[in-house]
Amino acid sequence: MEKMDFEVAIIGAGVAGMTTAIYLARAGIRCCLLEKSIYGGQINQSPEVRNYPGFVNVSGIELTANIFEQVKQLEISYINKEVVSITDKDSYKILELKDSKIFTRAIIIATGRQSKELKLDGIEELIGRGVSYCATCDGIFFKGKDVVVVGGGSSALEEAIYLSKICKNVTILSRSDRLKAEKYYIEQIQYRSNILVRYNTKVKGLNKTEGKLSSVVVLTDEKEEEISAEGCFICIGYQPKTTNFSKIIKTDKDGYIKTDKDRKTNIPYIYAAGDVVKKTKFQLLTAMNDGVLAANSCINDLNELMVD
Amino acid sequence: MEKMDFEVAIIGAGVAGMTTAIYLARAGIRCCLLEKSIYGGQINQSPEVRNYPGFVNVSGIELTANIFEQVKQLEISYINKEVVSITDKDSYKILELKDSKIFTRAIIIATGRQSKELKLDGIEELIGRGVSYCATCDGIFFKGKDVVVVGGGSSALEEAIYLSKICKNVTILSRSDRLKAEKYYIEQIQYRSNILVRYNTKVKGLNKTEGKLSSVVVLTDEKEEEISAEGCFICIGYQPKTTNFSKIIKTDKDGYIKTDKDRKTNIPYIYAAGDVVKKTKFQLLTAMNDGVLAANSCINDLNELMVD
Repeated sequence: MEKMDFEVAIIGAGVAGMTTAIYLARAGIRCCLLEKSIYGGQINQSPEVRNYPGFVNVSGIELTANIFEQVKQLEISYINKEVVSITDKDSYKILELKDSKIFTRAIIIATGRQSKELKLDGIEELIGRGVSYCATCDGIFFKGKDVVVVGGGSSALEEAIYLSKICKNVTILSRSDRLKAEKYYIEQIQYRSNILVRYNTKVKGLNKTEGKLSSVVVLTDEKEEEISAEGCFICIGYQPKTTNFSKIIKTDKDGYIKTDKDRKTNIPYIYAAGDVVKKTKFQLLTAMNDGVLAANSCINDLNELMVD
Repeated sequence: MEKMDFEVAIIGAGVAGMTTAIYLARAGIRCCLLEKSIYGGQINQSPEVRNYPGFVNVSGIELTANIFEQVKQLEISYINKEVVSITDKDSYKILELKDSKIFTRAIIIATGRQSKELKLDGIEELIGRGVSYCATCDGIFFKGKDVVVVGGGSSALEEAIYLSKICKNVTILSRSDRLKAEKYYIEQIQYRSNILVRYNTKVKGLNKTEGKLSSVVVLTDEKEEEISAEGCFICIGYQPKTTNFSKIIKTDKDGYIKTDKDRKTNIPYIYAAGDVVKKTKFQLLTAMNDGVLAANSCINDLNELMVD
């Protein structure tokens, strides 16, 4: 089994992880950045980012590619593997990968969060056959078709706006009697004649024709109805990705990692940054701010270690 | 006297103020952005920004021009005037300008901080004649000359690195026996043969020839010495810009505005963001994070006001 040594390992190469890496590397710390999927994280799914300072309009993918370029120029070791578990040995930490181990002095957890799954009979087999969790990824397959978006928050509306340019009709299915989204998005959907909002509406089932989604069964004010739709996009909330660390890292009831204001977890020399930490606003800037703070805490702690 | 009405006024168009404005405008809030000088703030003085995610290398001026473009596209009212004082009338606020008044429901203070001045006899008359607080602005006037940089922090080293490409020799005068700067900058100055560091060194006086700086008198370990230099760049710390609000807004002993974690000040509907609020790390991202939080608090407070 391969063994590697680094001063610090950062788990997750979303914007928080990459920001942490940039700050650590610039401070002269030898760190590695681990990612099980592709770098960039959730923002990769946003076709248009307009509230990140410095860009009037940039796609999430373009933005994260730029940040990854900064990571590469600083010669940070990028390891495209999943961290299965972490072990605390006080003076050092062990990160267990599938086929190797990494030994470090400190760890930054920046694994982010993922979309919550909709629990429905038979939904699994329809993923990729009409059901999707990502309009940016799959919207194009529903050109000129009718689709529904499940959810009533900002991200659901953002998906609906994106889809409205591609699809024939977009019906937003909101469980609540109002949309719990930013005013900006609420206004935007009003400008689009092919977006319809259905309030007090729950998804009860999915119908298929020849193995593909053909309609969605909904319950509106206790009245059942069938909405014809070839696409069903689900945006009903998020789940922090902490299961691989939950044995030793303290989380709140929703699974978010508990930290102090300096982004230190319950274990010394383990920090958390980004969407895996509960915050008032989950934004690029607030995630990156975590990265700066976690890196700073880590740098200070390691400096003190050298003095001791 | 002209009178204007806005829901929210943001004082200061640095990166924190502009971020706040972008978030407020996107939430449908009619706000104005006030700036007594030019937009952008302190970062305008950085020729190379390499730790802001999204740009491998960008000048401060280019970055803030991009952000200002976002502000313009959102049709935010930009008012190029100084706010002389603010008055709290509970249900509304008054901002006093030199020739007009602005009435608002809420205020965000994002005035930032400025460089501390070096107290020395005759220094005032040498500003612009050898003494400078900004290498980016004035470095070019010292092409091929010998200069000194007063200070031993990251910003002093950053200035020294910038000057080393233009000037003949750059001597860093550090009062302390070590540099209190990021390792990145300490390494960078080691690569440059024309940068010299003098430790335990205090500036005692400035000599002039024909009205211009000709040398700097220093005290190193109680030994007085004259260093020949036509330029003297001062980077000895910062002073938050709060004097125009100090009658009503609570600050700490160093003048930084006191806020809670949501960036609310001691007065309801007045918030603060950016370098005018004390923080662990003064970075673009931490200032912008303040902008997101202050905007969010303001949006929530104004929404509640509408419900009441």
